[in-house]
Amino acid sequence: MKNLQGIAASNGIAIAKAYTLEVPDLSFDTIKIEDTETEINRLHDALDVSKQELEKIKEHARVSVGDEHAEIFSAHLLVLSDPELISPMEDKIKNEQVNAEVALDEVAQMFIKMFEDMDNEYMRERAADIKDVTERVMAHLLGVSFPNPALIDEEVIVIAEDLTPSDTAQLNKQFVKGFTTNIGGRTSHSAIMARSLEIPAVVGTRTVTNDIKDGDLIIVDGIEGKVFINPENDLLAEYQDKQADFAKQKELWAKLKDEPTVSKDGVAVELAANIGTPADVEGVLDNGGEAVGLYRTEFLYMGSNDFPTEDEQFNAYKSVLEQMGDKAVVVRTLDIGGDKELSYLDLPEEMNPFLGVRAIRLCLERKDIFRTQLRALLRASTYGNLKIMFPMIATLEEFREAKALLLEEKDNLVGEGVEVADGIEVGIMVEIPSTAVAARQFAKEVDFFSIGTNDLIQYTMAADRMNENVSYLYQPYHPAILALVNNVIEAAHAEGKWTGMCGEMAGDPIAIPILLGLGLDEFSMSATSILPARTQIKELSKEEMASYKDELLSMSTADEVEAFIREKTGQ
Amino acid sequence: MKNLQGIAASNGIAIAKAYTLEVPDLSFDTIKIEDTETEINRLHDALDVSKQELEKIKEHARVSVGDEHAEIFSAHLLVLSDPELISPMEDKIKNEQVNAEVALDEVAQMFIKMFEDMDNEYMRERAADIKDVTERVMAHLLGVSFPNPALIDEEVIVIAEDLTPSDTAQLNKQFVKGFTTNIGGRTSHSAIMARSLEIPAVVGTRTVTNDIKDGDLIIVDGIEGKVFINPENDLLAEYQDKQADFAKQKELWAKLKDEPTVSKDGVAVELAANIGTPADVEGVLDNGGEAVGLYRTEFLYMGSNDFPTEDEQFNAYKSVLEQMGDKAVVVRTLDIGGDKELSYLDLPEEMNPFLGVRAIRLCLERKDIFRTQLRALLRASTYGNLKIMFPMIATLEEFREAKALLLEEKDNLVGEGVEVADGIEVGIMVEIPSTAVAARQFAKEVDFFSIGTNDLIQYTMAADRMNENVSYLYQPYHPAILALVNNVIEAAHAEGKWTGMCGEMAGDPIAIPILLGLGLDEFSMSATSILPARTQIKELSKEEMASYKDELLSMSTADEVEAFIREKTGQ
Repeated sequence: MKNLQGIAASNGIAIAKAYTLEVPDLSFDTIKIEDTETEINRLHDALDVSKQELEKIKEHARVSVGDEHAEIFSAHLLVLSDPELISPMEDKIKNEQVNAEVALDEVAQMFIKMFEDMDNEYMRERAADIKDVTERVMAHLLGVSFPNPALIDEEVIVIAEDLTPSDTAQLNKQFVKGFTTNIGGRTSHSAIMARSLEIPAVVGTRTVTNDIKDGDLIIVDGIEGKVFINPENDLLAEYQDKQADFAKQKELWAKLKDEPTVSKDGVAVELAANIGTPADVEGVLDNGGEAVGLYRTEFLYMGSNDFPTEDEQFNAYKSVLEQMGDKAVVVRTLDIGGDKELSYLDLPEEMNPFLGVRAIRLCLERKDIFRTQLRALLRASTYGNLKIMFPMIATLEEFREAKALLLEEKDNLVGEGVEVADGIEVGIMVEIPSTAVAARQFAKEVDFFSIGTNDLIQYTMAADRMNENVSYLYQPYHPAILALVNNVIEAAHAEGKWTGMCGEMAGDPIAIPILLGLGLDEFSMSATSILPARTQIKELSKEEMASYKDELLSMSTADEVEAFIREKTGQ
Repeated sequence: MKNLQGIAASNGIAIAKAYTLEVPDLSFDTIKIEDTETEINRLHDALDVSKQELEKIKEHARVSVGDEHAEIFSAHLLVLSDPELISPMEDKIKNEQVNAEVALDEVAQMFIKMFEDMDNEYMRERAADIKDVTERVMAHLLGVSFPNPALIDEEVIVIAEDLTPSDTAQLNKQFVKGFTTNIGGRTSHSAIMARSLEIPAVVGTRTVTNDIKDGDLIIVDGIEGKVFINPENDLLAEYQDKQADFAKQKELWAKLKDEPTVSKDGVAVELAANIGTPADVEGVLDNGGEAVGLYRTEFLYMGSNDFPTEDEQFNAYKSVLEQMGDKAVVVRTLDIGGDKELSYLDLPEEMNPFLGVRAIRLCLERKDIFRTQLRALLRASTYGNLKIMFPMIATLEEFREAKALLLEEKDNLVGEGVEVADGIEVGIMVEIPSTAVAARQFAKEVDFFSIGTNDLIQYTMAADRMNENVSYLYQPYHPAILALVNNVIEAAHAEGKWTGMCGEMAGDPIAIPILLGLGLDEFSMSATSILPARTQIKELSKEEMASYKDELLSMSTADEVEAFIREKTGQ
């Protein structure tokens, strides 16, 4: 048995066989071929099997994630049938008497290089398509198995270096019981996805792809961040018990689904959810969410081959608003750039993308993109309780400019006879230190704040939250973070405004007592964290927590803060 | 005439002919050669001329920047004489009957690719050497002129995309009257270099290399950040007057060289200088510096092929301390990583290097490197007034760990019988927002603060200071920056400690009145800014400036702050 420590990314215990998503060793020898006809047939056999697989994957993707996402596989299928690509391979086998592996590799490399050299995003994607497809065909030529996450049809735990959005789109929750990766942290894409899919996950193990092979029995402990490989019987039994306990715990939580969130001493706060798509709303309501505290609209843009039209956006926003009814929906305007790219938007390479042109910075530069989104939001505003929030605001000028554009588009729509709700609240993410420090000035002009702790911590500590080598500096309980959060809440309350939090910290059991004491009004988190948080808050006294404020804010280190809270709350 | 607006990087006016540092077009045709012997001679002629040039450049570099920096040119000369490289070129001409350009290019490319593919920093440098040298030889084959900054022997203004440290090392201040670049900001390497060399410079013009050709008459206005190309006579005369005025102004400043820095109402502050090498101390003393507020030790590491030994470091520190006598020298320990790399230290690639493993983070990971520096500093401590400062401190744990290592090495040295000064002050750079926010906690444990505004602003605004597309967010007067600076100064004074500032902001005429009012104790800047700052401070009332504090800290935007200060100080 072996065990690994990683980062607990999504609650729960999973026990199943390993399914590794790594591309196998595809190295091959050059062989002189006498019977070139048979060799050409061998190439075609590999091409045919690959085609059949891709057809299945495409069909699966179409059903599970929609036509648009399945398009990538159509592109792959086209490559496999392209005579411009296949004929030169046949010629190579015939004329140079080489084996099919050599022919496949040399021809594919030539096309890949040609497409990559064209300085054009579309062509580079074609190069990536050929690369993907070639690997699959090569695996079949070599007789090694190639990972097909979409075709998984038994219970497994997925093992990968990292999971990309397209990997996760292919995962079938019915069979994928958990996953674990080498890289990533609690705020990486794969971690957020795991919580949204409600499957246990441990990320950032560094070595899991080396330590585990297909078929190993794996325990993923998403509560403690542990992974066990081929556990002994005692441990397995222990974890089967834990798994049952966790299921029971979930049942207890479920009883609080329709209850309000009230502390032991009778103070109500709002527990909201972070979502990425209209499909996520069901989970929010199932988990007793009182609002959507963060609707990340960039998923609309990322899962598509071009900018979503105003109507496409309108339909998505309308769907979320209608499903939520009277409950508030805080929509964050487009947050692209940094670690989130769009294939159809060519942005300049940046040395430090997290400190570059992203989110509102990009929207104020590309007002055409921004105006389309604002119009779609305004048109949807009559279908529910919409609040609009701008991300990455660092200066009041940015907020003023963004709000002016919103009002301009509102005037335009009203002029066109379109109905728009009145009194839509317009707020900002507080995720840049300057805004947290100067919150008093901002509070006079915005309707609300939502503290984005993932980025706020990253910038305040000057530590990339995706970089494992500085992950020890990602410290939500650092006294400076607490001081900034406190400053934002105090500034808002002084102006009669409310403050929410939509970073990971809002759902963290150590942070929740602190935030309750500091007077946070709204906690927005992964839907699956809502019921545990409600359970916890019912046991906490806000007055008691508030009485610790000065002591907490003058502590020296994050460790001191954590130890203090653990002692006071018995965690 | 044409004019460009850039960023004023170094004070003064320069007027001279343009000298562009761009590599010329080196494309060539393939020609079938009948008389291969003549062609081989043509290759050798180009090699010989290149050798003669490199000999001259090497000699020049040896004199102006020292033997060590000249070594790179010895490496280049070796390449030009290497039979392993030259023979295959000759063979190619003879056997394939191609022109020398083709032979040079194909053989060089083969070697470059071979060296680059070896995953080894040393070999990659060899590849870079061959590339450099090949370009020079190719230029001679093609009969186009190749830039040789080291060989400039008439007054010029250098025009470049950017200036690397090795470019600037070659510039002869006697002839290079100014420079202007496409990229960079006030805190980029080239800007800092210009101020250190005391030559006017305008950076970040975006297009200057396209707009200017060799021999154009150029005005570089390093005060206003303007560049004029082939100015009309009126404008030229106007700028000749301005140049004379600036020279007169400098004479007036010089009279304050040995005066203390005292405000109109009798409050003394310290004006210190930022330096990179022992050679810079002369400029500090010539410009009336009262201390070295920041000695950037990384230059010791960057200008070398391996880590500097303890003795090499000891000698450098001792030299600075001895030259400064009683005056304080604040030495910053190694700040590598981010935009500063060492060829001999293989660091993992980071997606956001400014938010990665740099400075103290690296030193605490690579304690061997750190201990060597600490020992060298401690050994030098008896030769002057040394203070030690740790960069990029984000948590108290980091400071405690770094200080513990310092004390350990002190004990070791004392145990070895080495004399070490007592009571060396140990402080930190405040350049990460968390530290500025939690300054109260830090002030209890450190001996002093030095606010590094270049990074503090970058992180507080979440805007890469090297990225022109977000340069509008690099706002020293943002109310949040002022609030953080105020917080640091107040925290220090509450504990009886002092606060300095060693970022660009400390020498900025708009910031100086604000900082004086906030109670900053030490202002550390480019040596050439000291006398203008002293002149300005003599005219300011600290009490008046302090009376504006609350008003300034509650302003909404940086523009408001700037307008207010301009009005109050008549700038």
